[in-house]
Amino acid sequence: MEAHGMDVGHFFAVLVTIWIGAKLAGELAERVGQPAVLGELLVGVILGPSLLGLVPASDHTLHLLAEVGVCILLFEIGLETNLGDFVKVGGTSLLVATIGVFVPFAVGFISIYELARIDLIAINPDSIALIAIFTGASLTATSVGITARVLADLGQLSAPESKVILGAAVIDDVLGIVILAVVSSLAAATASGIAIEDAVSVGSIFKILSIAIGFLVVAVVVGKKLVHPIFDLVDQMRVRGVLFVAALSFALAMAFLAKIAGSAMIIGAFAAGILLAETDKFHIIEERLKPVADIFTPIFFVLVGAQVDVRVFFDGGPALVVGLILFAVATAGKLVAGWGAIGKGGKGMNKLAIGVGMIPRGEVGLIFAQEGLKTNLLSKDMFAAVTFMVITTTLIAPPLLKVVFRKPEDPDQVEPDIAATD
Amino acid sequence: MEAHGMDVGHFFAVLVTIWIGAKLAGELAERVGQPAVLGELLVGVILGPSLLGLVPASDHTLHLLAEVGVCILLFEIGLETNLGDFVKVGGTSLLVATIGVFVPFAVGFISIYELARIDLIAINPDSIALIAIFTGASLTATSVGITARVLADLGQLSAPESKVILGAAVIDDVLGIVILAVVSSLAAATASGIAIEDAVSVGSIFKILSIAIGFLVVAVVVGKKLVHPIFDLVDQMRVRGVLFVAALSFALAMAFLAKIAGSAMIIGAFAAGILLAETDKFHIIEERLKPVADIFTPIFFVLVGAQVDVRVFFDGGPALVVGLILFAVATAGKLVAGWGAIGKGGKGMNKLAIGVGMIPRGEVGLIFAQEGLKTNLLSKDMFAAVTFMVITTTLIAPPLLKVVFRKPEDPDQVEPDIAATD
Repeated sequence: MEAHGMDVGHFFAVLVTIWIGAKLAGELAERVGQPAVLGELLVGVILGPSLLGLVPASDHTLHLLAEVGVCILLFEIGLETNLGDFVKVGGTSLLVATIGVFVPFAVGFISIYELARIDLIAINPDSIALIAIFTGASLTATSVGITARVLADLGQLSAPESKVILGAAVIDDVLGIVILAVVSSLAAATASGIAIEDAVSVGSIFKILSIAIGFLVVAVVVGKKLVHPIFDLVDQMRVRGVLFVAALSFALAMAFLAKIAGSAMIIGAFAAGILLAETDKFHIIEERLKPVADIFTPIFFVLVGAQVDVRVFFDGGPALVVGLILFAVATAGKLVAGWGAIGKGGKGMNKLAIGVGMIPRGEVGLIFAQEGLKTNLLSKDMFAAVTFMVITTTLIAPPLLKVVFRKPEDPDQVEPDIAATD
Repeated sequence: MEAHGMDVGHFFAVLVTIWIGAKLAGELAERVGQPAVLGELLVGVILGPSLLGLVPASDHTLHLLAEVGVCILLFEIGLETNLGDFVKVGGTSLLVATIGVFVPFAVGFISIYELARIDLIAINPDSIALIAIFTGASLTATSVGITARVLADLGQLSAPESKVILGAAVIDDVLGIVILAVVSSLAAATASGIAIEDAVSVGSIFKILSIAIGFLVVAVVVGKKLVHPIFDLVDQMRVRGVLFVAALSFALAMAFLAKIAGSAMIIGAFAAGILLAETDKFHIIEERLKPVADIFTPIFFVLVGAQVDVRVFFDGGPALVVGLILFAVATAGKLVAGWGAIGKGGKGMNKLAIGVGMIPRGEVGLIFAQEGLKTNLLSKDMFAAVTFMVITTTLIAPPLLKVVFRKPEDPDQVEPDIAATD
């Protein structure tokens, strides 16, 4: 948007606009019975370049702060997470995640392939397969940031379904990184005339996957040993704010290491939270983190909203139709995944809630869309269609989650006129 | 440094480096009996481009965050300030500020003029007067940020001397803005061949001064009326973090308005703090602000340190000698100003402490230096000399303040072996 970044006055004005907009919209959303994050996303759409133009959605500094925001969010969620609970539902999460990646990818691939064949979308016949692969891939990842925030807004973070959702979302993120790396290599190879089978081997896929999973395992195992000595040392320091600054540094350092290891930063921040949850200081850290999270996380959600260009859906192109089809595939694919919560781990769980929890694509889907646009693989229309899918899945998840977490066995919520006896 | 800004991984690594460096150095400084901010400044010098090169001192995003940091600091100081106390010492502050602007300017002007005449510094004879004016002007402002932080570190914010210092520093900032505007107009006029007397009139100086002072008065008067209705409204909102986000938005909005009005942003943030100190919510706001300040303010102080290029003082040029002369003038000029605390307002006050409190030039002096370099008025050597003066006055103030705030009438501190009876 602005090549040299905002001047300091503009920057302050944008921050104040984001904060006031987020809080007013969040309040409004809660008053009509929706999670606050829905308000923040929608106000982002309104404040973004395609409508009011008050928030420069592509400003570099805002993007960096949004990354800090989503990492702080995941760090906060991690702090409230018990590692044991997570491991308990690990098998269920893995199954849910795998189905949730495979089904949307397969159905998405077939849909785009068929749409191109009936000429609904005009694409070069040579790259139909590649574009179909890319679009299918963009349907796979789950936005752990949005889901986690909605679950927190609803006070449902400790529900067993939430553990499965968050576990599956983290696994999805790892799988998403692998898929993105593979698909990007495919695109790059095709662009330079290399045969697809030479560009991507089973070995290279396995390598990317091992690094991403390896990081998480190493981080948790090594981190578990290092956290106590480090924070015992911090405990002996007396300078103002040292405990909290050390904790936040730990979170951002883990995020950085995750990125270096080829994984997603939010996974590192989440792991840092889980590790610090084991220390005796975590209540103080959690308390101090709250106002910092209140400052940074709205920047992330408002910016996600601001990146939506609402104009492309009213220009008569195929973006809206293809977008609606992708939305249907994306939603149905993750709902199917929810039924993967079978066996001992998923016993008695609300499978619909798990499926719904996996729906939002959020920032991960947008990364796919941007990568596709950058490599000239996706046309403006296809980019808009993928963006439409990302936004609609992200916007529909908060209200849907609110509905499905009203469990039928809870008479207090289903029939509010009858007083609960338990 | 980097034209397109840091990527997100680099950004996270730099933030963590700044935070860990600041806390370790702050702890070390406190252990040897110095204020923590001295450690933060020095670690900035070490981490900056001229030594370790770990903190990119000219990165745009870091500068924006540093501005947020110094505004949050002044907002925090404002919250701890009672407006009445301030008004009580207003006359004394005004006298101290006026002397502290006039004496360093006059002595600095004469010194540079004479140094140029004896050819110690080589400058174009036509611009001697202008360069002498510019250098003299760079000696006038007081860094309210650094002084306020040191006083807070020493637990002396409520001392009457501190009120005089802070009041005078705020007035100094207003005067500094006026002087900078005038000097910049002079430089611009000379560059385009316009006669100096046509570029700057008494009327234009009066206009700049009126706007800067007018803003403060209007802000406090109008703000006083608006704060209660606004925060009564916020009180009825229930969304998470709304009170604190509203308070911080208020502070940044006031900073923005101050800039629009042609004043300094920190003055707006300071005024916001004073206004909110009058509400019944200020204890909650202060509590929530602490961790946010702990995150943002070290960015400011480390960045001030990182902007020092230590190499220019070892290249055999006149930078070091001229820098030392400027340092002496800057220090002596403000010490003299301390003796302006006469009359009823300054009765019984530690005049040396007031003078020492006015010594650091900090960010304001650097703004002058950068403006001079930008307009090609200051040579590399003169820029380095001004920078040297800014840095040394900034570094010497924390330890000196610590010494002078040990009042002679306090036997507990002067002679630690004798037990205090009061």
